[in-house]
Amino acid sequence: MIVIGIDVGGTSIKGAFINEKGNILSRFSMKVNKRSAPEKEVKELCSIINKSIKENKYTGKVSGIGIGMPGIMDFDSGLVINSPNLPTWNNFNLKAFIHKETGLNVEINNDANVAALGEATFGSGKKYKNIIMITLGTGVGGGIVIDGKIVDGHLHQGAELGHMVISVGGRKCGCGRRGCFEAYASATALIKETKKMMKSHPESLLYEVGHELGGVDARNAFVASKRGDKCAIKLVDEYVMYLSEGLINYCNIFRPEAIILSGGVANEGEYLFNKVKNYMTEHNFGMKGSPKVEILPSELGYDSGKIGAACLLLNK
Amino acid sequence: MIVIGIDVGGTSIKGAFINEKGNILSRFSMKVNKRSAPEKEVKELCSIINKSIKENKYTGKVSGIGIGMPGIMDFDSGLVINSPNLPTWNNFNLKAFIHKETGLNVEINNDANVAALGEATFGSGKKYKNIIMITLGTGVGGGIVIDGKIVDGHLHQGAELGHMVISVGGRKCGCGRRGCFEAYASATALIKETKKMMKSHPESLLYEVGHELGGVDARNAFVASKRGDKCAIKLVDEYVMYLSEGLINYCNIFRPEAIILSGGVANEGEYLFNKVKNYMTEHNFGMKGSPKVEILPSELGYDSGKIGAACLLLNK
Repeated sequence: MIVIGIDVGGTSIKGAFINEKGNILSRFSMKVNKRSAPEKEVKELCSIINKSIKENKYTGKVSGIGIGMPGIMDFDSGLVINSPNLPTWNNFNLKAFIHKETGLNVEINNDANVAALGEATFGSGKKYKNIIMITLGTGVGGGIVIDGKIVDGHLHQGAELGHMVISVGGRKCGCGRRGCFEAYASATALIKETKKMMKSHPESLLYEVGHELGGVDARNAFVASKRGDKCAIKLVDEYVMYLSEGLINYCNIFRPEAIILSGGVANEGEYLFNKVKNYMTEHNFGMKGSPKVEILPSELGYDSGKIGAACLLLNK
Repeated sequence: MIVIGIDVGGTSIKGAFINEKGNILSRFSMKVNKRSAPEKEVKELCSIINKSIKENKYTGKVSGIGIGMPGIMDFDSGLVINSPNLPTWNNFNLKAFIHKETGLNVEINNDANVAALGEATFGSGKKYKNIIMITLGTGVGGGIVIDGKIVDGHLHQGAELGHMVISVGGRKCGCGRRGCFEAYASATALIKETKKMMKSHPESLLYEVGHELGGVDARNAFVASKRGDKCAIKLVDEYVMYLSEGLINYCNIFRPEAIILSGGVANEGEYLFNKVKNYMTEHNFGMKGSPKVEILPSELGYDSGKIGAACLLLNK
């Protein structure tokens, strides 16, 4: 069985032919022009797909196409409702168009949900029945997978895991509300706090690290913290506290077997993971009496979206 | 098909014979002595069950027994791990004992989960596929039901919906942590805030209402608020804000079709529900673009636990 998994991004579309074991057999990709009509862009995508099927001699062997797509969509009908990264696609029926052009069965879900499904099925979550995946990037996204199925609520609009308020009336969030998990645990939040700390402490090693790395991103606080800088240690400790409090909430709500962390900040690896695990063991309600929750890095990395999209068909 | 639904409480056990339409055919109950051995108490329960089956001429017609039980249990094996309200029951295998005494198939789950299942199946959630039920009582409990099944995570230890932190480092919670939803949205929290307000404002109508009602419970703030007392209005507005922020979190995480509110504070009815709905419409992330979430009172009331326990078998 071969399935096509597609990850639609704001600047490019990446796809792969994937077998029933989750292995990538071959890849394809294309740049997306944000300003051009979706009919033009998706027609190009479909011709790449049709060409790849022929070239790879997969004709008659492909069972369908799974797509992970950011933004708000009617995933059942395939209609794009609000895609902030690809605004010209609004009101375009992605599913119907691709089906018409390729003759293949098409399934669509949210990109964060699909990445979680990929990790749950073939990545670091494959040993577990209940997992949550949280992406610590520009924003905080995530997905819930229980028994091999995405939990996405009414009309698949669920699992906005970054917009759980953990501090009522707290930091402003990009969504317009206050106190969201994203406003504390995203790379963006950490960068903002790092810049504030650098401004108030120009004498700190943290400030120097900014020159060394040629700017500020989510790494600066960790680099300076490892070298013992007090300002950076404070930043990292605070970041870990808020991140862990959010994760503990998800433990208490779902009691997952594992939480998978991905995205820019998760690249800090063991240094970050150990701090999070320590905080969670210390503070988790019921952690002492209740089953252990594993905190794991992503195994599939940038492929989780494509593999997860394929799982929309493989897990049926 | 007839199923027995049982609601185990700290002072009494209540049960009912329930048909496949969720109708209660007949009831039974017994007092529980917290100090006596579980073997003695549960033997008495089983003899009541066996007697009731005979008297009602249900012999051969009962498909099994569903039980809603507070505390931490291994619901699969039936072993009680930690039951704060019935401490002598720890390490007692409730499922095996009842099966032996009655010969009937036994299913057990947490009392809050089971109540949510009852409402989802036969109560105010029966029109919906995805619901959350939140009980605003001494604590804040709750359950998640998706497609007729309880979502309770690893080893059924999930859905501690009252222990989602909504204010990191905030009010102390009974669980030992800080900032939990329960510390803001329970009747206990409202009573505590009411007493504080009365102490600092002995000139207020709120203070007078305390004399009128002969004490302080969750009603006082609402009674005085309806009469225009500024202190009480502040209390109710703050309570509604925290309650709604917690409910909005559950909307963003699950995107349920309906949230059902039960327990003492929910008895305030429309006055409370309208305020919550207004706050949520104003503040819900994505509420304008995403599907509407109904906020509903419980329909089954005190029977939700028994009917829900029966659903553990009826929904299989």
